[in-house]
Amino acid sequence: MLVVQTIAEVRKFVGEARESRKSVGFVPTMGALHEGHASLIRRAVERCDYVVLSVFVNPTQFGPSEDLAKYPRTFDADRQLADRLGVDLCFAPSASEMYAANCSTYVVPEGLQDALCGRSRPGHFRGVCTVVAKLFNIVRPDVAFFGQKDAQQAVIVQRMIEDLNFAVELEVLPTVREPDGLAMSSRNAYLSPAQRQDALCLFHALQAAFAAITRAQRDAAAIRAQMQQAIAAMPSARVEYIELVDAATLKPVTGLAGHHVLIALAVHVGATRLIDNIVVDVT
Amino acid sequence: MLVVQTIAEVRKFVGEARESRKSVGFVPTMGALHEGHASLIRRAVERCDYVVLSVFVNPTQFGPSEDLAKYPRTFDADRQLADRLGVDLCFAPSASEMYAANCSTYVVPEGLQDALCGRSRPGHFRGVCTVVAKLFNIVRPDVAFFGQKDAQQAVIVQRMIEDLNFAVELEVLPTVREPDGLAMSSRNAYLSPAQRQDALCLFHALQAAFAAITRAQRDAAAIRAQMQQAIAAMPSARVEYIELVDAATLKPVTGLAGHHVLIALAVHVGATRLIDNIVVDVT
Repeated sequence: MLVVQTIAEVRKFVGEARESRKSVGFVPTMGALHEGHASLIRRAVERCDYVVLSVFVNPTQFGPSEDLAKYPRTFDADRQLADRLGVDLCFAPSASEMYAANCSTYVVPEGLQDALCGRSRPGHFRGVCTVVAKLFNIVRPDVAFFGQKDAQQAVIVQRMIEDLNFAVELEVLPTVREPDGLAMSSRNAYLSPAQRQDALCLFHALQAAFAAITRAQRDAAAIRAQMQQAIAAMPSARVEYIELVDAATLKPVTGLAGHHVLIALAVHVGATRLIDNIVVDVT
Repeated sequence: MLVVQTIAEVRKFVGEARESRKSVGFVPTMGALHEGHASLIRRAVERCDYVVLSVFVNPTQFGPSEDLAKYPRTFDADRQLADRLGVDLCFAPSASEMYAANCSTYVVPEGLQDALCGRSRPGHFRGVCTVVAKLFNIVRPDVAFFGQKDAQQAVIVQRMIEDLNFAVELEVLPTVREPDGLAMSSRNAYLSPAQRQDALCLFHALQAAFAAITRAQRDAAAIRAQMQQAIAAMPSARVEYIELVDAATLKPVTGLAGHHVLIALAVHVGATRLIDNIVVDVT
């Protein structure tokens, strides 16, 4: 595996791969790789001839009071894992390589950014779209791999690809969970042992929602109330949002019948903000 | 010359050209082609192996009270000119081919859009950047050709290319003028014979500015005042702005010395809004 820091090197090596008619797969990450990322990389290696991984903690997607400075950085372990899994090129740029001092052009997902996580994280998805657009233009992949764990991000990136006509296919892979159900996240590293236990409430809430739907519950408010209870059961947990929305438009649904429903929640466990979701096809 | 209406056809034909290792040049236009466009096409044909022209009156760059509906459309003449000049592929999509009903991702040139024309045309450069980003992703040109006549547009597109890492080189070509000095513009077609005469005031104002600078005038306010007089001399003309700005940042300059100065103005002649500019390296 090659590790490079500059855009010019990425263009050079990916250009050579493309010259040899290799298909190019791309896994963009902020590092601190876990099994969720590994599943994306494995799929990319399986599907594409040449796999590029980016490791970049993107400053433009963090708010001023968010955890940019303390976001976990584990580059040595990341590069070893990536190498072992068969990544061909690891792109780990500096912030100044990615953002010139005078940069001022942003990609804005108007509308879709006002739902779910976007409400408490203004500018977050503008930062995500901007860096993903940049990375798409640098890497020019055939396929990009994202995780369903960040459901709103996947919807917004898919819409960006369509709206801006990127010649990139998005493949979204299922959320990978710990044995007890906690969704894998780089931010799980922030949790104390007690909080790690309480963090299960997100999964429990989603289980409760799913069980209610299988028992023919179709009322969004009733399902939310049940999910709320699951969170309330854990002392260090505080709900930021629990939402049932159309999985494509992210608009809230009141009755679930006939919808492809994204059930998503954000919960603060101590000082750590966690998210999780499931998508249910409701008849 | 091939004429196509769909994105898929553009990708197909440009893909074939690229397979044969041809360099791809791109001239994006809103049609109503004049000698200014012709100079861009001639340069593209001279420089590149395969030349794509787009003809698309882009709705997202028009404000609600602007001239989208009556913007001149002369497609038969446009395609004949393009064919004669050696364009390989003319892309003339419908609005619905370019914008899906649910599209909501925009490219926003924050900061630079607040200067000059952007002040009276809110959203204009968001529309320009969005459609140019889309067209870049559809055509994937090596070089794109723009006119200096739309000076702010050229600066903003250059910044977009850098900020979003498009693998496209921008070549900006000089403003083409009528024999009496009026800058070529599709909107000149709106002018009555009397207004056509008054429209010369833009060129006269720029000549006055240039003459003042050669006479060692370095004070922006003094130069503006002289330009203002040139406009005031014409009965149907009304100034929207006269600005002396740094040619890269578009920030106003007060003393010209040491600046690469963009002297730009927008003037309403009757109901027609006209713009013009010169760039002067001031020592």
